[in-house]
Amino acid sequence: MASDNIQLDKNGHLKHFLSTEGLSRNLLFDILDHAESFAGVGDRAVKKVPILRGKTIVNLFFEPSTRTRTTFELAAKRLSADVLNLNIAQSATSKGESLQDTLQTLEAMHCDMFVVRHASSGAAHFIASQVSPRIRIINAGDGNHAHPTQAMLDMFTIRRHKPDFTKLKVAIVGDILHSRVARSEIHALTTLGVNEVRVIAPLTLLPSKVESLGVHVFHDMEKGLENVDVIIMLRLQRERMRNALLPSEKEFFVSHGLTEEKLKAAKDDAIVMHPGPINRGVEIDTQVADGERSVILQQVSHGIAIRMAVMAMCMGSPDELSAVES
Amino acid sequence: MASDNIQLDKNGHLKHFLSTEGLSRNLLFDILDHAESFAGVGDRAVKKVPILRGKTIVNLFFEPSTRTRTTFELAAKRLSADVLNLNIAQSATSKGESLQDTLQTLEAMHCDMFVVRHASSGAAHFIASQVSPRIRIINAGDGNHAHPTQAMLDMFTIRRHKPDFTKLKVAIVGDILHSRVARSEIHALTTLGVNEVRVIAPLTLLPSKVESLGVHVFHDMEKGLENVDVIIMLRLQRERMRNALLPSEKEFFVSHGLTEEKLKAAKDDAIVMHPGPINRGVEIDTQVADGERSVILQQVSHGIAIRMAVMAMCMGSPDELSAVES
Amino acid sequence: MASDNIQLDKNGHLKHFLSTEGLSRNLLFDILDHAESFAGVGDRAVKKVPILRGKTIVNLFFEPSTRTRTTFELAAKRLSADVLNLNIAQSATSKGESLQDTLQTLEAMHCDMFVVRHASSGAAHFIASQVSPRIRIINAGDGNHAHPTQAMLDMFTIRRHKPDFTKLKVAIVGDILHSRVARSEIHALTTLGVNEVRVIAPLTLLPSKVESLGVHVFHDMEKGLENVDVIIMLRLQRERMRNALLPSEKEFFVSHGLTEEKLKAAKDDAIVMHPGPINRGVEIDTQVADGERSVILQQVSHGIAIRMAVMAMCMGSPDELSAVES
Repeated sequence: MASDNIQLDKNGHLKHFLSTEGLSRNLLFDILDHAESFAGVGDRAVKKVPILRGKTIVNLFFEPSTRTRTTFELAAKRLSADVLNLNIAQSATSKGESLQDTLQTLEAMHCDMFVVRHASSGAAHFIASQVSPRIRIINAGDGNHAHPTQAMLDMFTIRRHKPDFTKLKVAIVGDILHSRVARSEIHALTTLGVNEVRVIAPLTLLPSKVESLGVHVFHDMEKGLENVDVIIMLRLQRERMRNALLPSEKEFFVSHGLTEEKLKAAKDDAIVMHPGPINRGVEIDTQVADGERSVILQQVSHGIAIRMAVMAMCMGSPDELSAVES
Repeated sequence: MASDNIQLDKNGHLKHFLSTEGLSRNLLFDILDHAESFAGVGDRAVKKVPILRGKTIVNLFFEPSTRTRTTFELAAKRLSADVLNLNIAQSATSKGESLQDTLQTLEAMHCDMFVVRHASSGAAHFIASQVSPRIRIINAGDGNHAHPTQAMLDMFTIRRHKPDFTKLKVAIVGDILHSRVARSEIHALTTLGVNEVRVIAPLTLLPSKVESLGVHVFHDMEKGLENVDVIIMLRLQRERMRNALLPSEKEFFVSHGLTEEKLKAAKDDAIVMHPGPINRGVEIDTQVADGERSVILQQVSHGIAIRMAVMAMCMGSPDELSAVES
Repeated sequence: MASDNIQLDKNGHLKHFLSTEGLSRNLLFDILDHAESFAGVGDRAVKKVPILRGKTIVNLFFEPSTRTRTTFELAAKRLSADVLNLNIAQSATSKGESLQDTLQTLEAMHCDMFVVRHASSGAAHFIASQVSPRIRIINAGDGNHAHPTQAMLDMFTIRRHKPDFTKLKVAIVGDILHSRVARSEIHALTTLGVNEVRVIAPLTLLPSKVESLGVHVFHDMEKGLENVDVIIMLRLQRERMRNALLPSEKEFFVSHGLTEEKLKAAKDDAIVMHPGPINRGVEIDTQVADGERSVILQQVSHGIAIRMAVMAMCMGSPDELSAVES
């Protein structure tokens, strides 16, 4: 994945959004600030801005996901773009067409942006490296590698509650090993200058050398959550675990599931986050998920704003963008 | 299902449209009058009004139905809303998310209205009772309980041909037992003051105590159709009948299928209705379905107008509505 | 298929677009000229014209095809129409509704145009003969019979490179027998006055009496390609071949696959076309497909313009059309 300069144009503006890795603190703040200007659109009577009118955005999903596809589709429609949903897993390559040919065909149709989800790590980068300079790529999740819009909506949610990142202790809890969300969050949190980033997981669910990412490793919830401001629970990716890396869901809940009891270790005003969909009683207790510390549904709302922001920025002329804010 | 007050806001305006049961005669007439103002939109060169521009309407189908989904999608698009089609049966809950979490997630995305179809009776009421006050619910069919937009498009079609409900004899024929359409029609017809509502069915296809709904029961077509103004044939829900409640489709046609011969019992200017899709030669003869007394295709057209009307009314500010009529 | 007058209204304007057979040279040129006026829309910042705003176009696909459906959906959206995608194979007729009833139901919903793909030859003609005069039909491929928009986008592409059809030698290569594309191209090329149309295929992949269409038959690539201006490769329809009509894909490539070597027989400035998706190494070598003589991706772009043109022409008032060109 080496350099992520491919994400920027020659003026340093966002061109593709593939990963939070390799982007500057300023650029991440820029994304958050843009998202602020879109956050109000959802509350308007007319939830639509004309920024991407006449643009064609393709949801290019090689791995099915109704939920993520829906958020991108909504974000695109609220920007007034035309949206095509292509579920490649089910259809196009059934005729044996190569990925390259699929991409070139969509380019030839004058599509402007591909929102890519793929089971292979690096797929979105690869596609960004192959398409013509006219096309913009948003990574909607690639293998175990990255899910940058999820990470940025989390940063947005954190900032709304805790404006100064440099003062925060943040714990990410669960299946770090298989989590593209965790990877993207760790890069975003460290880049934004968070005081301390912790990961809490059983040994079997941690990548080797995870400390090299700048995080502190904990295996025990009570110690790991001590005095933190933000708790990010991860979804237990049952469908992604090929081997028996943990004894049972029930045992996982006992050791690493978030309960009111375990939550006491954190600061009194700590917020609880989760990318959804939630496995209640597996990684999080219902009481906590629905409790007053939970900001899980705010994350969903912010997800639309973040996706509108990165779509507009990548496609974007700054002139058009400034129109929203007025 | 007890009270349907959940359908009304505190000023008595339509908020959700879940059932024809429990709504006042005035309100039903109000729906019909609104639909009149939308009925012309389908004939315009530009079949679009800006009433719901910037609103997000979700077709939340827990039971697949291309036909019904299509009519709601068209109605929403002609109101200029953005439409999301979610086939929950196939997708979202495959990740094990609870209904509650699915609903809250869609709310957090600032969706405005859910059009719900579900195999369980009461599902739309349940969902309406769970969502935040911002959300509007339209019932697109729940189990054997209700299908109120179908009932109202039928009332609309009847009124176009026979303006005074109080003078009418209406017969509903066929599988009353499994028909949510029949239930919603009976409530609408009695509320609108129809002179006499009859149901005609074999004993095995009648709910127990159906007379308590205010209908007269007939088992014989010739007697039941005598002198009626309106005949509503029901679809034989083959896919919904779990047991052998009738000997064969052929025998059903002989006893309860509508033929030119049986039609003679009705008034000379009686109209013939059917919710579609038609099983030709099972519940209705081709000659009758395509004959001059049939208003079946008018029902389809009116279905778009009725759906536009209830969507607009539930979402709606009266100010915006009056704009269509000008 | 006899007469194609069904395609024209009483003033000789295009009403349905079912086949290139039976249309006059003037009308084909008219389509190409209209497509020129739409070709630039794909390069605009706002890729949208308001010509079909408020119209409802239904993609009525009885045979699934993501690629073709996508091009029609994009063309319709860029004309500002509302689009319904109905995959009839999967859904509607599962309830046993007849084709006739499906069509009448969509008509009653005030749909304006059906884009039809069907596995049976003649399906689009049949549908055009059944629907009410208000409805327009575009054939998006019917059995082995016709695929007229593909043929016209090919004509458009040829004219962009070789403006005078009367001077051209054009070779169509491959599985002529099963190709609706080939049939539509042969009719278009001969109508447009092309000097010589050749087909090159093994005996087993040629229809009987193909010469009666006005083409010269070759079995050998070197002789058939000699001195041609345009080479149209056909996709080897593996999914459409029911019997073992050719020994193997590899042998087919050796005998009839287009390579740089075989290409030498053609004129130095000959262009290479293919309707896509490509089977690299089966009917065309990668070097040729991606080489400088290939205009395959231009064909894709022109496909949107041609589809916009025929949709607008069929639906259309000439007054509205002239607005695009200004």
